[in-house]
Amino acid sequence: MNEIKLIQRIRSKASRHASVVVGIGDDAASVREQIGTEMLLKADMIVEGVHFTRASRPRDWGWKAVASNVSDIAAMGGEPRFALISVGLPRNFPMRDALEIHRGAEEALGRFGAALVGGDTCRSEKIVISVALTGVVRKGRAVTRAGARAGDIVFATGPLGGSLRSGKHLRFTPRLAESRYLVSRYTVSAMIDVSDGLSKDLRHLAEESRVGLVIYASAVRLAPGARTAEDAFRDGEDFELIFTMKQPEALRLCADARAARLGFDFYPIGRVVLQRKGLRLIGVDGRDGAFPKTKDHHFA
Amino acid sequence: MNEIKLIQRIRSKASRHASVVVGIGDDAASVREQIGTEMLLKADMIVEGVHFTRASRPRDWGWKAVASNVSDIAAMGGEPRFALISVGLPRNFPMRDALEIHRGAEEALGRFGAALVGGDTCRSEKIVISVALTGVVRKGRAVTRAGARAGDIVFATGPLGGSLRSGKHLRFTPRLAESRYLVSRYTVSAMIDVSDGLSKDLRHLAEESRVGLVIYASAVRLAPGARTAEDAFRDGEDFELIFTMKQPEALRLCADARAARLGFDFYPIGRVVLQRKGLRLIGVDGRDGAFPKTKDHHFA
Repeated sequence: MNEIKLIQRIRSKASRHASVVVGIGDDAASVREQIGTEMLLKADMIVEGVHFTRASRPRDWGWKAVASNVSDIAAMGGEPRFALISVGLPRNFPMRDALEIHRGAEEALGRFGAALVGGDTCRSEKIVISVALTGVVRKGRAVTRAGARAGDIVFATGPLGGSLRSGKHLRFTPRLAESRYLVSRYTVSAMIDVSDGLSKDLRHLAEESRVGLVIYASAVRLAPGARTAEDAFRDGEDFELIFTMKQPEALRLCADARAARLGFDFYPIGRVVLQRKGLRLIGVDGRDGAFPKTKDHHFA
Repeated sequence: MNEIKLIQRIRSKASRHASVVVGIGDDAASVREQIGTEMLLKADMIVEGVHFTRASRPRDWGWKAVASNVSDIAAMGGEPRFALISVGLPRNFPMRDALEIHRGAEEALGRFGAALVGGDTCRSEKIVISVALTGVVRKGRAVTRAGARAGDIVFATGPLGGSLRSGKHLRFTPRLAESRYLVSRYTVSAMIDVSDGLSKDLRHLAEESRVGLVIYASAVRLAPGARTAEDAFRDGEDFELIFTMKQPEALRLCADARAARLGFDFYPIGRVVLQRKGLRLIGVDGRDGAFPKTKDHHFA
């Protein structure tokens, strides 16, 4: 069972539809509905024992289930709008905890300007929380993974790695404010959120854009719980944004004091190169190596 | 753990949003996006051991997961548009079967005019298939559960009961064609699809419309696998539509030979009465009784 292969197979067979602007394989789908806008669509499922354990707080599961979808809508440069939440719960699961899951979900929806409009509840041996979130973005302005070009600079919105060890993966802040700031003031050529880990998510971006990447280990900030750049590449569930910009635009961003005043961190971590150059990680010692291999988190 | 109570609690706490025309508690949410239309939103989750077993075909699970959502969009009088499918699969689940799930889902999407635009895959001990489906309906034309009035006639689109025994619950045809026919030619006052069982779904409709109902057991057609009217009231997963119409409209429908030529079955099964009259089932022997009690299927 290989997730990537499965998605590729599903994608290759998906029917085409005139209103679908971005289909399967990006952070969220984009469909043209309202005049002047596109609707974004995204779904994510989290499962007990895979994405969280009973040792953590039910409210945090609800937050995480919503926030991870908000992160994807942010990664498209959009605004979250409407959520559907389906919850599978074991027999005799306490009502109090079910409401706590919901409270966490509502906290996240309220914080990021989205509204719950429906969902489903059913029985399940393990707790399952599945969220579908719509978003809205100006027509033609969805920021995909496919727009990076050789010469662009690669940025991260924050330190990476150690999310599972530090507990950040349960109570993270999706980078919606950063995304709003970026798309309203700059031309972002490509963007993705880091959920599977920097290695895998940079690979997604590179494949979709048909480019290579050179990342500098010394430029990747480590989050609490991460000890080495390898951790940052492998751990995943950071929910930071990775984005690319042409160099003049990148320099303008670096020089823009407003971002710092607003409390945003934009770290340049590398550059986009031609596809045949591949994916390279320049170590702290200056050695040129491959990206650290990752295990498949979600089917692990 | 009581599903109804949980949904009521969630609903009472849901934030209001100016664009939400129909929120939590109907077959699907309706949000105003496109000029002249509303977007419908619906999600449903099915879990191994609760909604299907490994003894059935993976392709049928995919069909069922999509078709049950199509049924809800049809119950709103809308057209299905875009689907997100999240699948949780056990370690070592065969790729062939994962693709069969997807093939069944795509069959249903293609048949009913919708397109897959995204989703998520993750690991899960038990198989979980969660589908979110958008739909579209003309502005102000969503058919809710709340419009039934005393004097209206109650119809069903087909025979009921025995769905789990007959296997219909896995390979049913959502009544989209019937819904299209009805909403394009008649004024339908309220509509709901039968998923939880006639007893519970009629109760939902009655509560939302603040009316009572009188149903005639002799008028309820039994599907294969159902032996008594009680089965039809309790079994659930029929995915037929129940709808109400004012009497002149109902008579017009009964007289309309076009419906029969198109192969549609619309059975009048009862009438809408004042709320204080309650929910009554008139037995085949003419005895006036309460609706048969149902177990809670989904948290059973």
